Amino acid sequence: MSLDRDEIGEVVAAVRSGSPRALGRLISWIENASPALPMIMKKLAPDTGRAHVVGLTGAPGVGKSTTATALVRALRARDERVGVLAVDPSSPFSGGALLGDRVRMQEHALDPDVYIRSMATRGHLGGLAAATSQALRAFDAGGFDTVIVETVGVGQSELEVARTADTVLVLLAPGMGDGIQAAKAGILEIGDIFVVNKSDRDGAQALVREIRTMIALADRGPEDWKPPIVSTVAYRHRGIDDLLAAVDRFHASQLATGRAEERRVARARREVESIALAKLRATFRLNGQASLDDLAEAVSRGELDPYAAADLVVVGR
Amino acid sequence: MSLDRDEIGEVVAAVRSGSPRALGRLISWIENASPALPMIMKKLAPDTGRAHVVGLTGAPGVGKSTTATALVRALRARDERVGVLAVDPSSPFSGGALLGDRVRMQEHALDPDVYIRSMATRGHLGGLAAATSQALRAFDAGGFDTVIVETVGVGQSELEVARTADTVLVLLAPGMGDGIQAAKAGILEIGDIFVVNKSDRDGAQALVREIRTMIALADRGPEDWKPPIVSTVAYRHRGIDDLLAAVDRFHASQLATGRAEERRVARARREVESIALAKLRATFRLNGQASLDDLAEAVSRGELDPYAAADLVVVGR
Repeated sequence: MSLDRDEIGEVVAAVRSGSPRALGRLISWIENASPALPMIMKKLAPDTGRAHVVGLTGAPGVGKSTTATALVRALRARDERVGVLAVDPSSPFSGGALLGDRVRMQEHALDPDVYIRSMATRGHLGGLAAATSQALRAFDAGGFDTVIVETVGVGQSELEVARTADTVLVLLAPGMGDGIQAAKAGILEIGDIFVVNKSDRDGAQALVREIRTMIALADRGPEDWKPPIVSTVAYRHRGIDDLLAAVDRFHASQLATGRAEERRVARARREVESIALAKLRATFRLNGQASLDDLAEAVSRGELDPYAAADLVVVGR
Repeated sequence: MSLDRDEIGEVVAAVRSGSPRALGRLISWIENASPALPMIMKKLAPDTGRAHVVGLTGAPGVGKSTTATALVRALRARDERVGVLAVDPSSPFSGGALLGDRVRMQEHALDPDVYIRSMATRGHLGGLAAATSQALRAFDAGGFDTVIVETVGVGQSELEVARTADTVLVLLAPGMGDGIQAAKAGILEIGDIFVVNKSDRDGAQALVREIRTMIALADRGPEDWKPPIVSTVAYRHRGIDDLLAAVDRFHASQLATGRAEERRVARARREVESIALAKLRATFRLNGQASLDDLAEAVSRGELDPYAAADLVVVGR
């Protein structure tokens, strides 16, 4: 796909003016790792930095989509512009997520201030988390006040995606194997707020207690914020106002302490580093032919040491 | 600490000849991120690639040190030279681990074919996992047949350390909060062999069943190897022969399928990339003054886009 400067300029202007259609095109370009992205991101940069990004993660079946939809409704009631980005690291086509989108879109289909979109990326320079950051930057430039990033599951790359958010919600539900769902990699460490959805089911109270114990045991590092546990029944819209209040409280505290800014800088840093490393990988050639894989093989065979290999990568020869 | 070429040459020669004292000095240099490391690693590279590295990870209190000691005894019975590297990411002084070493050293204190050493690193170029890889390379060059890398806990950086091993053992024990200990980040995904230690205690059978369920649910990717669960009572040396047999079986299967080689290349690649990135971070200056942090701040404020920032990092201006 080759894009000319006029086409790029038009889409950038339309994204800025808040056009969902233009935003959708841009996210497709991000999915497909369009070579025009550096130019586009450059043009959008001045309009970014305002949106509040809320991450939503949890095992399949806990009700992430329903909770996202309920949050959208609550945020619309405050007259915010709301975006939802569903990120699926596993599928190149985001088939399942797209189907879900169509169903969910119905409620907000005629509302120009809601845009729900799924994204599946392959081969984006800098990886899935960098692609997500860029899609979020596109929502941000489009004037969306809150953007919800929803992951499909809780694998490693999905945790990376969740970490691109300003506020991370971890969803659990009773009867899903209890501890086992929380046993997934790193989920306890990243939650700013825990949500026990389907809390009208048996075992909800026990799950709340279990999460409380697990949070206490998890290696969360020093911080003042004690993650609250909010009980919801998202499909009945029960507990959603409490959840939104917890989100507001967390976000206000992060802004007041400067942690919101720290987190954004850390996120930008990871993004820049991952793109820089991807650039090194892509452009590096040893004597015009060896790849980073060749270097790694030489190191693993003892023909080269890792410092000399790193020098070759950085300096180029 | 400044080292002259003669001193470096002497230590390298002594490490190669298998001197535990020289190995200890070199590991101190790795801990302290000595500027002589690139030269040393270059000299050692040709002697590496033989040792079998066995990672040992699990929550504090499951008996990692006792199991390592029992494995050392079993490997010595086969007349192997055995090294143990205890890696502590949290402490700059490795106080606790060192105390443990002194106790453990007693059994093998007079055995020149066993070397047990703890390592705590700060500021190593490339991070803890790269520092561990280099210490392992030092053991390897010293002619140790098997090197056991033991982590203090199961935090993210410790999982990275465990991933530097050829064979990863994940230890659990009954009565430690059951699912909760396994709930720690990513532990289920990385185990090649699971060990239920203290299996003479109540709940050992239930724990074996729980691990079996959790392994089945964990996102391990496609592979033929079904991780076995071995029950041990390490302080009585019970089950250690079974464990060693499982280790041998896994290692043989990895060698036969070429996965051992793949894993080593992947490890070398991560090491080279992390050193390259650290070099970029350390040497990068924008117009002679800005740091990568400044760049990340500019990106987070929308003054710069991440591609342009990455270009500045890679190209240097």
